[in-house]
Amino acid sequence: MITALAGGVGAARLLRGMIEVLPPGDITAIVNTGDDTVLHGLHISPDLDTVMYTLADAINPETGWGLAGETWRVMESLQRLGGVTWFNLGDQDLATHCYRTQRLHEGATLGEVTRELADAWGVGIAMLPVTDDPLRTRIQPVDGDEISFQEYFVRLRHDVAVAGVRFEGASAARPGPGVLEAVDGGDLVVVCPSNPVVSIDPLLAVPGVFEHLRRRRDRVVGVSPIIAGSALKGPADRLLREMGFESSVAGVAKWYASWMGTLVVDEADAGMAEAVEHEGVRCIVAPTVMSSVKLSAELSRIVHEDVS
Amino acid sequence: MITALAGGVGAARLLRGMIEVLPPGDITAIVNTGDDTVLHGLHISPDLDTVMYTLADAINPETGWGLAGETWRVMESLQRLGGVTWFNLGDQDLATHCYRTQRLHEGATLGEVTRELADAWGVGIAMLPVTDDPLRTRIQPVDGDEISFQEYFVRLRHDVAVAGVRFEGASAARPGPGVLEAVDGGDLVVVCPSNPVVSIDPLLAVPGVFEHLRRRRDRVVGVSPIIAGSALKGPADRLLREMGFESSVAGVAKWYASWMGTLVVDEADAGMAEAVEHEGVRCIVAPTVMSSVKLSAELSRIVHEDVS
Repeated sequence: MITALAGGVGAARLLRGMIEVLPPGDITAIVNTGDDTVLHGLHISPDLDTVMYTLADAINPETGWGLAGETWRVMESLQRLGGVTWFNLGDQDLATHCYRTQRLHEGATLGEVTRELADAWGVGIAMLPVTDDPLRTRIQPVDGDEISFQEYFVRLRHDVAVAGVRFEGASAARPGPGVLEAVDGGDLVVVCPSNPVVSIDPLLAVPGVFEHLRRRRDRVVGVSPIIAGSALKGPADRLLREMGFESSVAGVAKWYASWMGTLVVDEADAGMAEAVEHEGVRCIVAPTVMSSVKLSAELSRIVHEDVS
Repeated sequence: MITALAGGVGAARLLRGMIEVLPPGDITAIVNTGDDTVLHGLHISPDLDTVMYTLADAINPETGWGLAGETWRVMESLQRLGGVTWFNLGDQDLATHCYRTQRLHEGATLGEVTRELADAWGVGIAMLPVTDDPLRTRIQPVDGDEISFQEYFVRLRHDVAVAGVRFEGASAARPGPGVLEAVDGGDLVVVCPSNPVVSIDPLLAVPGVFEHLRRRRDRVVGVSPIIAGSALKGPADRLLREMGFESSVAGVAKWYASWMGTLVVDEADAGMAEAVEHEGVRCIVAPTVMSSVKLSAELSRIVHEDVS
């Protein structure tokens, strides 16, 4: 049994590889919900949807988010009305948000709705929102008022200096059903190459998750989202620096060291292995750029076999 | 200045004729919001939208509701997900609901949002929701639990026996800004050929509206939604009978008599003029079937000129 901690695009790609080498029923992904937002009254869960669409082979391969062959009728009309269009929602994607929102209004939990959607999309792994309770990543820019994660990430294209990050609702949030059991029960706990600061940290902010992970430290293996000092996508490099860490695999190792026993780094960072181990984290060097399902599967196999 | 009391399709058609014969700026429509519903988290105002789309010449002429040239991408996807699809929402129409819901979440009133949408659609008349507060028409079937208006009207295609109707929220609802002023200030108050029981009655349930209308009784003129005993569309005939009234222009006159001075009935009901006047309501006979904008305009002219 493998348990994965997952954010969006990077996590989705690793999980896509994982289902090539393991039975999907053996995989549980605990997925970040700190990115969730309500827009137009619709409950949007970007990380859950990116994982779901990717595993269903329905993702737009160009962007890494949204659906392939998507149409934009609603957004085009909303633009004509002068509505809020900085968060682009395709027509098919909107159906997912309509479904989720309606079911939540009917009293279903986010975990229940996620299972229903995953079934409808034919996703074979167990996808667990880290919590069914509200959890909202909030970004404090160096200049100006605190903003939501999506305002930071999408509207401002993460092009602002960040002074701090907090997870609203975290202290009152309860781990979703099965979450702590999955941390405890995984033969491995794989930390996907997601943003450490805003994709993985929200999971740890839910009471209980960090403690349970720490007890499994020697079974926790991460894949570095930083390659040769940079993030392939998104602001992980910049955010690590803004949080006072080095934007390198050593910085990632230091960020995770208290609860992660092993870090897989890209071949480009082979020379940094010693710096990783200096943080008390075992280092594995492997190709980590997942530009195809084949490469994702290969990385997944290495993570699985070299640590097991 | 003309003030109209409006429900959906019938009202929209009369108003469409009215803007042919009067400057749109001279017309204020007080529109029913008892049909409003929240579905998929979206705030849907069917009567406001039907009036708006019709006045914008964007309505689907076949159905009388929804938009011409509409597409159904979101609903098609929602159907594949197993979502709630009995209330059909086109892609362009969804943009209206997204816009409205987002603005309401931002703190705008329904009246403010309606003005913004009407401006975006180029609607020249003043459209006033009867109230900015929640008002929900609830239907008590003879058999089974109370249901929402849209469940009755759309999901069950109004094919159930009705024991009673109530307007949830009415006693706490305040008339929207300008509503009582429009009732007081109209040279005429035109009651459109909408359903008396579930489209016009919700307006009267908002405290103040009925009293103000009653004071203007001799300036209130209605167009009968019943022609030769039947409703052209919808369950007005059946509901009148279920409420203990005759399904005829005389029944309509009796329903409205306490606050309506004049009723326009179709030529098919010329023989009923005496029965209408017997209820203490002046009767005008005219062609009332609005199968074209030209006929709508003609009816509107008759209502305006014969009473003024």
